[in-house]
Amino acid sequence: MASESGKLWGGRFVGAVDPIMEKFNASIAYDRHLWEVDVQGSKAYSRGLEKAGLLTKAEMDQILHGLDKVAEEWAQGTFKLSPNDEDIHTANERRLKELIGETAGKLHTGRSRNDQVVTDLRLWMRQTCSTLSGLLWELIRTMVDRAEAERDVLFPGYTHLQRAQPIRWSHWILSGAIAGNPLSVDRELLRAELNFGAITLNSMDATSERDFVAEFLFWASLCMTHLSRMAEDLILYCTKEFSFVQLSDAYSTGSSLMPQKKNPDSLELIRSKAGRVFGRCAGLLMTLKGLPSTYNKDLQEDKEAVFEVSDTMSAVLQVATGVISTLQIHRENMGQALSPDMLATDLAYYLVRKGMPFRQAHEASGKAVFMAETKGVALNELSLQELQTISPLFSGDVSCVWDYGHSVEQYGALGGTARSSVDWQIRQVRALLQTQQA
Amino acid sequence: MASESGKLWGGRFVGAVDPIMEKFNASIAYDRHLWEVDVQGSKAYSRGLEKAGLLTKAEMDQILHGLDKVAEEWAQGTFKLSPNDEDIHTANERRLKELIGETAGKLHTGRSRNDQVVTDLRLWMRQTCSTLSGLLWELIRTMVDRAEAERDVLFPGYTHLQRAQPIRWSHWILSGAIAGNPLSVDRELLRAELNFGAITLNSMDATSERDFVAEFLFWASLCMTHLSRMAEDLILYCTKEFSFVQLSDAYSTGSSLMPQKKNPDSLELIRSKAGRVFGRCAGLLMTLKGLPSTYNKDLQEDKEAVFEVSDTMSAVLQVATGVISTLQIHRENMGQALSPDMLATDLAYYLVRKGMPFRQAHEASGKAVFMAETKGVALNELSLQELQTISPLFSGDVSCVWDYGHSVEQYGALGGTARSSVDWQIRQVRALLQTQQA
Amino acid sequence: MASESGKLWGGRFVGAVDPIMEKFNASIAYDRHLWEVDVQGSKAYSRGLEKAGLLTKAEMDQILHGLDKVAEEWAQGTFKLSPNDEDIHTANERRLKELIGETAGKLHTGRSRNDQVVTDLRLWMRQTCSTLSGLLWELIRTMVDRAEAERDVLFPGYTHLQRAQPIRWSHWILSGAIAGNPLSVDRELLRAELNFGAITLNSMDATSERDFVAEFLFWASLCMTHLSRMAEDLILYCTKEFSFVQLSDAYSTGSSLMPQKKNPDSLELIRSKAGRVFGRCAGLLMTLKGLPSTYNKDLQEDKEAVFEVSDTMSAVLQVATGVISTLQIHRENMGQALSPDMLATDLAYYLVRKGMPFRQAHEASGKAVFMAETKGVALNELSLQELQTISPLFSGDVSCVWDYGHSVEQYGALGGTARSSVDWQIRQVRALLQTQQA
Amino acid sequence: MASESGKLWGGRFVGAVDPIMEKFNASIAYDRHLWEVDVQGSKAYSRGLEKAGLLTKAEMDQILHGLDKVAEEWAQGTFKLSPNDEDIHTANERRLKELIGETAGKLHTGRSRNDQVVTDLRLWMRQTCSTLSGLLWELIRTMVDRAEAERDVLFPGYTHLQRAQPIRWSHWILSGAIAGNPLSVDRELLRAELNFGAITLNSMDATSERDFVAEFLFWASLCMTHLSRMAEDLILYCTKEFSFVQLSDAYSTGSSLMPQKKNPDSLELIRSKAGRVFGRCAGLLMTLKGLPSTYNKDLQEDKEAVFEVSDTMSAVLQVATGVISTLQIHRENMGQALSPDMLATDLAYYLVRKGMPFRQAHEASGKAVFMAETKGVALNELSLQELQTISPLFSGDVSCVWDYGHSVEQYGALGGTARSSVDWQIRQVRALLQTQQA
Repeated sequence: MASESGKLWGGRFVGAVDPIMEKFNASIAYDRHLWEVDVQGSKAYSRGLEKAGLLTKAEMDQILHGLDKVAEEWAQGTFKLSPNDEDIHTANERRLKELIGETAGKLHTGRSRNDQVVTDLRLWMRQTCSTLSGLLWELIRTMVDRAEAERDVLFPGYTHLQRAQPIRWSHWILSGAIAGNPLSVDRELLRAELNFGAITLNSMDATSERDFVAEFLFWASLCMTHLSRMAEDLILYCTKEFSFVQLSDAYSTGSSLMPQKKNPDSLELIRSKAGRVFGRCAGLLMTLKGLPSTYNKDLQEDKEAVFEVSDTMSAVLQVATGVISTLQIHRENMGQALSPDMLATDLAYYLVRKGMPFRQAHEASGKAVFMAETKGVALNELSLQELQTISPLFSGDVSCVWDYGHSVEQYGALGGTARSSVDWQIRQVRALLQTQQA
Repeated sequence: MASESGKLWGGRFVGAVDPIMEKFNASIAYDRHLWEVDVQGSKAYSRGLEKAGLLTKAEMDQILHGLDKVAEEWAQGTFKLSPNDEDIHTANERRLKELIGETAGKLHTGRSRNDQVVTDLRLWMRQTCSTLSGLLWELIRTMVDRAEAERDVLFPGYTHLQRAQPIRWSHWILSGAIAGNPLSVDRELLRAELNFGAITLNSMDATSERDFVAEFLFWASLCMTHLSRMAEDLILYCTKEFSFVQLSDAYSTGSSLMPQKKNPDSLELIRSKAGRVFGRCAGLLMTLKGLPSTYNKDLQEDKEAVFEVSDTMSAVLQVATGVISTLQIHRENMGQALSPDMLATDLAYYLVRKGMPFRQAHEASGKAVFMAETKGVALNELSLQELQTISPLFSGDVSCVWDYGHSVEQYGALGGTARSSVDWQIRQVRALLQTQQA
Repeated sequence: MASESGKLWGGRFVGAVDPIMEKFNASIAYDRHLWEVDVQGSKAYSRGLEKAGLLTKAEMDQILHGLDKVAEEWAQGTFKLSPNDEDIHTANERRLKELIGETAGKLHTGRSRNDQVVTDLRLWMRQTCSTLSGLLWELIRTMVDRAEAERDVLFPGYTHLQRAQPIRWSHWILSGAIAGNPLSVDRELLRAELNFGAITLNSMDATSERDFVAEFLFWASLCMTHLSRMAEDLILYCTKEFSFVQLSDAYSTGSSLMPQKKNPDSLELIRSKAGRVFGRCAGLLMTLKGLPSTYNKDLQEDKEAVFEVSDTMSAVLQVATGVISTLQIHRENMGQALSPDMLATDLAYYLVRKGMPFRQAHEASGKAVFMAETKGVALNELSLQELQTISPLFSGDVSCVWDYGHSVEQYGALGGTARSSVDWQIRQVRALLQTQQA
Repeated sequence: MASESGKLWGGRFVGAVDPIMEKFNASIAYDRHLWEVDVQGSKAYSRGLEKAGLLTKAEMDQILHGLDKVAEEWAQGTFKLSPNDEDIHTANERRLKELIGETAGKLHTGRSRNDQVVTDLRLWMRQTCSTLSGLLWELIRTMVDRAEAERDVLFPGYTHLQRAQPIRWSHWILSGAIAGNPLSVDRELLRAELNFGAITLNSMDATSERDFVAEFLFWASLCMTHLSRMAEDLILYCTKEFSFVQLSDAYSTGSSLMPQKKNPDSLELIRSKAGRVFGRCAGLLMTLKGLPSTYNKDLQEDKEAVFEVSDTMSAVLQVATGVISTLQIHRENMGQALSPDMLATDLAYYLVRKGMPFRQAHEASGKAVFMAETKGVALNELSLQELQTISPLFSGDVSCVWDYGHSVEQYGALGGTARSSVDWQIRQVRALLQTQQA
């Protein structure tokens, strides 16, 4: 009869527990990451129980000792999982009981597995954020070092990928270093959340909200978006057409078919990971959407997302640091890419300094660009007479405009591309680095 | 010949500018939101120009006066867009020139439209974040008021949507109020970014990074995820089967087909908006992925996203406040949903207090649940003799366990469901509200 | 000097190849899935080379034999990876060379690794789609079997989670079975793409487009969305409040804290996986966005996504089949959940049959509902006189309306909930199943 | 007392219906798009009612006539919305009643608003898919025309953005035209779903599944992903560094700051829209996730998504057609970008034809590339003697390798870049176009 077998129609499975369900349900495969923080959390909890009078001093000591033994087994690779260990928490509890007997059962007085899950994950993420933060600072430090050493190299600044104005190479590097910045803010945010200094206000919310996970995944997505943009720039600069930089062989690969090729695989992988990391963030938010309050098993999705994203970020940050530190720049190509038409804005400013409103000066400069194009000469090859047909304000001193070095030095406002401004940026970022090390 | 017409093969369009391209390119349709901050930004900029000696005092006054006039026209609805006004910036500049003549052209000395775009959006978001923040605090205030007034109502707590333990209704309300919390943190983050106290470190990064947009969209997504979960709970509590609460007619609609129905449309819409808002966040990050540095027109996608999300959040927060403030609760149904098996954990704790390790006590209580089910009686209807077959530690005082009020009072730890603990949560949230008003 | 070491500033790594880059670049860890199709593809390719005169018959035989040996080693678990095996293709090629010598080098004449990657993945997906399709049909078969056996059970139909009208339980089951449908369409789509009957039209597009991957991931996302909705319904039906169904113990788990609980973990996991699967789809599309044409290493992201989603789908479909086949239904509870107000639409139809326009009849029925509520009686307890104060069209035969069985039988149109209509749906789905087996 | 006011604590709103809720709930603002199909659907439904004996012939004629009048008012812009018109369905029904009186009430016998919503949307999408399909074919036609006319232009093929081998410009164009292909497949899918030839199998599923919406949004996302990649290529080809193509002024804009600039805004906007469109797809799937079966108000999110995506696709396809048809190519620059090292693969094939296994030949060719680099000469400038130090198989006929035209002609396999192969691709796409017009 149907109800006896517990199974009514069709289906594949006969018996007490569907083995596929068991595997589907179990998180032990990826939970292993958590052994250390699980022991750490249990030790703290047993101290709390003793303080509350729910464990005697002797019992607490027995538990603490047992937990140390469990940790030792994990550290030495001798911990043996049993087929019934559903997750890290049951595994550690089972082993503790084998080691110290019934007292182990007292450890879980008044806490649920859901409490453990969320506490362990918070502890683990505190460690991870600290590691990733170190790697990010390493990347930023490398960028600043490089920016300082190469601040006399000029090359074209682009908007819309069209050549715009001459800028310092270091100005570009620093724009990337600063884009890494979000972490410095967000890590504080996460730290504030994860330092446990504050008490969770509401027990229902405590086991069920995963803001700290969502925010971590979003920080990673945003950070990867910045890195994908930096990678895109460098991939372009590596093309034969730009030829501004050359990747170290350590971060390139050849082609299986075309002997002459050297592909920027490292940068392409960095760029691609933005998708993967954001996909995890999107997945988690979709899982959370419309979920009833308190714990639901759906929340189990959080951990694999966090582990995978943490691994990806760690690799990306290290490879990016390696790429930046070994990259060769081709100064001559950078210089040759500068052309007089990139000084058209400077030409307009020249007129502004002679008293013309900017919009008129912009128009006058545009006419000069058009005249040069029509005549098939470079902008700086127009004669003074020709320029004066556009505006009588042009005079002999216009020749000073045609100097790239002079051009970049005009942008001395904070954040600009003048030497002094770039130096200031370097000092700002170094100061930030210093704060982190303190 | 092909090259003369500038158009080679096929295609629909003949002429100087494709009108579909013009529309595709123009942002004026949704840029209108920005008129006020654009004027505000230009006024500040003209003061900067005067200070830098690029405008005379008289020119600055002329420009400031003209900009006030432009603002007046927008405010009174008399500003007339011309077909060539591509965006709010060109519209305001064009109008300013009509009003004050050539001096208008000096306003744009040294700033690009990309600078204006990003400054305007930052200014607009500072206003919007402040408005949304006010609406969120209104929602939280309503929830706390309600939690305070109804803190003596008990009903089932659920995990996995299975009845777990008795809790206070106010405990549930507060779990929602606290989940709204992210804003209080993030708003500070955004404020910090948007108060312009800090100078943008790098000019390339300044026009191109949209972290403040991405973070706003993510904050909104996370906030909506919380609200979608609260809405899901309330939709369940509104079902005939739960019947814990009843939505005000002001927030329900009837069925066009079934006369007896009253549907929780307001809550369903709140739940659904999580998808829409997150979709905008996902869209922006995809647009940003792999974009070359500095300005690219792709960045124009940011504004519609921000405007739509801001409107959605504003409506959702107000409707949620209305729903919570007018919701009726059915105390009797809530009470009747409490059943003795929800005290099984308390039964285990009873044994713990008699000295049994928790894991054994949990097992013993499980046996009692099974025994009651088998005998077809409620858990509290098992006789003392029957309980003692499970453990000799059971004695007459076990009857004290069967009291829901007593049960919730056990959870007096901070964050718990005891009256004192709920009162503490109310005080905490009130204190937070106070901070905001200061 | 800087250029000698190839590394300029800072950074962690010294040497020829950064080991983290090597790991970052290598796909061998997850490529193993592809060993079988890689050998299969290479065998086909060597036959092509022989036909084109680029291999002699003897060389081809040597290669085919060597490849069989490679496959044997993989199948027996004796294939040994070398540290330089970057991916499955280089591993197999390296091993082939060890086995048969230089002739192995001829195998790759005229094909690039990028060709191999994409061909292997297409071959692998053809197998996978076939497996997943089988599992989906198994789920649908189970659902139809069950729908057939239980078609006399009535329970409430819901819209907006509010009770609407009585329906057959089988009607609900079939709505789920039909929602599984997309596969039957999409699989054809994929098959069409993957059967290689058609030749790829353009060699640039061939190595670079991943539509077959994106479409697979989207199909999986949509399928999971349907399953998440079915899971949500069943989770609700499992609550104490609904109590329509009971999950088999094989697909439930207990609580570590609350002895009385039985949680629908299997259904919650199914629901949660919609997020994970969609996250992979979102991630891939973001990776593809704005990628230059032809092969870029970014495309390497496709494989892990496909492997993970395939594993997830396989587990979900099997667990869902198990859940449905072992689920117990509580007929009495389903019956008791039917209430006279759910017949209000039938009451309106009664008036329509007497000649009243539907909108008026809807209003009249609404008045009756309100009258019953006001008097505190069930809708079917209103007297004929009371009904006649609403409309004189009511007469003695109105009593026939108050019969749930009669109510569902009215919906005999195709797709409706009448017995005949449900039977028709069962036949339709069975016919579909038959087509698949043929 | 609380229950009288229906509002208990705090909150902003007093009265019968919260006006913000009314606006939140109402869909009329964007529903207008549907007026035509709503009338069309209602006309078909009234014919069905007459056939079923639920309307007399006279009543049906009255309704049909009234609906024509409603349609006329919409078409002429004279339809007046009343403040209570919640959506297009209630608006049309209200107006019909004003025009023809009580008979209007009979139109809705046996159908719910949810039925209407989903039917209207399906009808609207059938029209829209047909329009978009036309625009897509126009784009493809333009590309093929262009490919045919310019098939003698050679330029570098790239992988990883590194120059790989010479290809025909038409080969690149066709790779884009083919990538547009998905529609031709998917449209059939949608048509099949939307032609109503098939009857919806299950009434519960019919009002609640939105597969046709999700599939449309995904098709659009995938199509936009392809277009974003084509746009990226063209943006690169427009850079000063590549200078392969020049955008028509009709699809470019200047800079407000830099007079010399011409930015590819049209292409950047096309690229950016991939994010927006995919965001809508992501949003809808998140909204659907975990939704209980049958109709829930959450489903209202479908329409704005579809309308916005349809508008975006329409603009993108037209602008892309315009861009492609007016683009100028710079043949000389394309030719100059070809360099002898791109023939390294051909050099390897030369050795293969002399009997060397491909892997050895690849290595030999790599040595030649290295030798040329070391000596600072072009690959084709190595003397025969120098080549013979690498392999004795080199002889005088190696000079034939150094011909780009000859190189591309080797790739005559279907899909390759030989003239004959490109011609074949053109014929294939033209044949596809023909099929569509039939």
